Amino acid sequence: MKHQVNKLVFKRLGIDTQHEHFAYMREDCQVCISEGFEALTRIRVTNGKKSIVASLNVVRSQILKTGEISLSESAIQALGIEEGASVTVSHLHPIDSLGYVRSKIFGNELTSGQFQMIIKDIVDGNYSNIHLSAFITACAGSRMQIDEIISLTEAMIDTGHKMHWPGQCIVDKHCIGGLPGNRTTPIIVSIVSAFGLTMPKTSSRAITSPAGTADTMEVITPVTLTMEQIKRVVEKEGGCIAWGGTAMLSPADDILIKVEKALDIDSEGQLIASVLSKKVSAGSGHVIIDMPVGETAKLRSIEAANLLKVQMEKVAHAIGLKLKVVITDGAQPVGRGIGPALEARDVLAVLRNAPDAPVDLRERALLLAGELLELSGKVDAGEGNDLARKILDSGKAYDKFLAICQAQGGFSEPKVAKYRHQIKAESDGVVVKVDNRRLSKVAKLAGAPDDKASGVDFLTPIGTKVEQGQILYVVYAESKGELEYALEYLSSQKGIIEIA
Amino acid sequence: MKHQVNKLVFKRLGIDTQHEHFAYMREDCQVCISEGFEALTRIRVTNGKKSIVASLNVVRSQILKTGEISLSESAIQALGIEEGASVTVSHLHPIDSLGYVRSKIFGNELTSGQFQMIIKDIVDGNYSNIHLSAFITACAGSRMQIDEIISLTEAMIDTGHKMHWPGQCIVDKHCIGGLPGNRTTPIIVSIVSAFGLTMPKTSSRAITSPAGTADTMEVITPVTLTMEQIKRVVEKEGGCIAWGGTAMLSPADDILIKVEKALDIDSEGQLIASVLSKKVSAGSGHVIIDMPVGETAKLRSIEAANLLKVQMEKVAHAIGLKLKVVITDGAQPVGRGIGPALEARDVLAVLRNAPDAPVDLRERALLLAGELLELSGKVDAGEGNDLARKILDSGKAYDKFLAICQAQGGFSEPKVAKYRHQIKAESDGVVVKVDNRRLSKVAKLAGAPDDKASGVDFLTPIGTKVEQGQILYVVYAESKGELEYALEYLSSQKGIIEIA
Repeated sequence: MKHQVNKLVFKRLGIDTQHEHFAYMREDCQVCISEGFEALTRIRVTNGKKSIVASLNVVRSQILKTGEISLSESAIQALGIEEGASVTVSHLHPIDSLGYVRSKIFGNELTSGQFQMIIKDIVDGNYSNIHLSAFITACAGSRMQIDEIISLTEAMIDTGHKMHWPGQCIVDKHCIGGLPGNRTTPIIVSIVSAFGLTMPKTSSRAITSPAGTADTMEVITPVTLTMEQIKRVVEKEGGCIAWGGTAMLSPADDILIKVEKALDIDSEGQLIASVLSKKVSAGSGHVIIDMPVGETAKLRSIEAANLLKVQMEKVAHAIGLKLKVVITDGAQPVGRGIGPALEARDVLAVLRNAPDAPVDLRERALLLAGELLELSGKVDAGEGNDLARKILDSGKAYDKFLAICQAQGGFSEPKVAKYRHQIKAESDGVVVKVDNRRLSKVAKLAGAPDDKASGVDFLTPIGTKVEQGQILYVVYAESKGELEYALEYLSSQKGIIEIA
Repeated sequence: MKHQVNKLVFKRLGIDTQHEHFAYMREDCQVCISEGFEALTRIRVTNGKKSIVASLNVVRSQILKTGEISLSESAIQALGIEEGASVTVSHLHPIDSLGYVRSKIFGNELTSGQFQMIIKDIVDGNYSNIHLSAFITACAGSRMQIDEIISLTEAMIDTGHKMHWPGQCIVDKHCIGGLPGNRTTPIIVSIVSAFGLTMPKTSSRAITSPAGTADTMEVITPVTLTMEQIKRVVEKEGGCIAWGGTAMLSPADDILIKVEKALDIDSEGQLIASVLSKKVSAGSGHVIIDMPVGETAKLRSIEAANLLKVQMEKVAHAIGLKLKVVITDGAQPVGRGIGPALEARDVLAVLRNAPDAPVDLRERALLLAGELLELSGKVDAGEGNDLARKILDSGKAYDKFLAICQAQGGFSEPKVAKYRHQIKAESDGVVVKVDNRRLSKVAKLAGAPDDKASGVDFLTPIGTKVEQGQILYVVYAESKGELEYALEYLSSQKGIIEIA
């Protein structure tokens, strides 16, 4: 409880603890002695005008000398500190917004101002993982009122970096809970920007899936662009398909999402705030949400999807975003390829109007592009789908796609993996069910997304009549070891593709 | 997603991260590359037959050479590993019991078997702080059914170290939510063991308060005893008043309590499981719970206390523990001293039947000792209080106390602090309210519990008629700086003692 102030010399140990700031101090330093180390102590570390909160780890060795302190990499960055500089360590005064987290834990509704303070403290790095986890848990399981979700979304927008684009009508599209192969984004961007709307699409890389849109596009064109580069592409072509990783659209969400993944939970409130805050920060005014529903998709029932849809629309309305949710079929993958290069191949086949292009991917892209054209207000209701089809069939969408790729740095054809293995039907029948999750897992075990050409080619959608010995899907891998690894997993799995 | 197994050489860096195991690995090692570091990665580390789960920190410096790994101190201890030994690092398979935590987050009731698995995984170190925080939060705010609290308590008992004592009737006493100065324990132990019951009392040190019973007793006699020493004292004298820190009575609770303190929340379910599991593990069959209620006590209303009382009694009954809850007055400190030596002085005054002994401390101790005598079944209902009084008045309790101190290693008189400052009434009137929390804070700022003789002497209980200039309380400190520190805080505080 003593509030001594300590001056210590900073020594870098190079320990990366991610977003949570850590301080490393010798067990014989004043703070360790006076604070006691039993209570997961947090301290304030100050370097000139910059100050952070850090969790304390005690060093019981000679890697630090008397009078030295070390900091985790994130803390070093936040403090902007150089080796040998002097920092001040002091007692941490209580963080007010944690009182609101406690209030939420005990079931109370929070105000807009309280969410603002919580989110600001999260962005400032004032919460430890323990606090972040408690906040997420307290807000999960339908414990957030719609007003609270609106407040959380607004707080995330207010703390994010805001993008500005040329053009009046900025459109975007988002898919809730990825479905393997559901790579409609590059097709939609090509169609709507060929029409004349502005669609500055920044996508994510895969975190737990076999491919994100950024991974898939990277097979064809550079996606790691600076904000300046992205702006130039959009100014020139009206659209882009880039990686959005460094945009800091919602820094609070970037932190919360890591903890949610560690907990393996998705709460609808956080999900809505996450998606919509990023859309607003990205400068979008009109957004189509693709919401696939299926037994092995993220949303497992139409009821659950409708519940989420209603909440999402309410929040969008409150924050001034024109939004339409399209509930789609999530019973099976879209297109054939699962994995960056295989999905890129499907995307190109659709854009090129190739005779063997997967019809489901084409139709899903046209559905969403049509809805987006109508949502923009530039196309009358009922005419979007036909117009999108006309733009695609005419080759204008493909031309626009190529132009965007050129603007992003060039175009190349997807490579094909060297190793492959066919999985065949064990009996005659009709495909009745597909396990998206296990099919994704096979693709990941085969090397996707790091090995771009690895993955799965899924050939027999639900309803396909198959004969014993017919190929159901093909596993692709860039190395023999990984192919074997995927097959080893498959040897213990039954019924990924169910035939009846 | 790749499941490579890596052999690495262990190097100690001496970093103490408390209960959460951490592994430190270079950014160029296989695991860091293949697992990706974005997702708060956890890995399995194996040393021979021992295996732990650790959270990964990535090292971006030369403190580790290629092929080396370091581990936090807790992980080193759990693996029993020596510098230079070779460990295996592998992918972590999902921890099943986290599925039950998720289920609880989404509002489902858990079974006894599910709590057993959760608590076992916590004791095994398989939960990160993120998971622990989610479990605590999901169980807080009246989200646990009584059957769940029983299951949690039983799971904690099953994973704890169990103590065994000579004698048939082992009794204990616990106070929920400490009240400053409420140091009845040494007096109660002396009375009931003088009577012939066995009361092997192990107490805690202060974590957030100005003194725990162990801190107070340490002023008078050694309290850091081994289990063997404690057993010898109890065999000889029928009672002890030792520090229980190393007893491992409920290792899951020891971990959960740290995270609860970081969150600054107390949930009734965890509280009941914590207290009762430790009592059963400590070998007690009969327990009195002191439950002080007051505006600035932990329990703020009689209704809240009664709710907790009913739940606690139900759980005790289910696990075969004879328990009685005594709701007491928590409006103000008990006795005069707040801080180890000042409280020890009060305890000795009561035991010695000194004419100036604080009456409230004496009467509270007699009330609880009387209840405990009756609960044991050896004393008839209605006779406990008089019997306790007789034992105290006769000097037998003091004799027993001295004998226990001698058995624990000797007796010494409490020291008196050198520096003091009197806080005086600013007007005439009657004391109507006392702020326990701020009075405790003054005692802590003055140096308690580390500086044993520091603290506060509170002289004017509620109802005292005071004149302007009369001393309300005295601040004691061992150093001038700390006295000033406490006074600086006081200069900004009004109405700690309210006079009307």
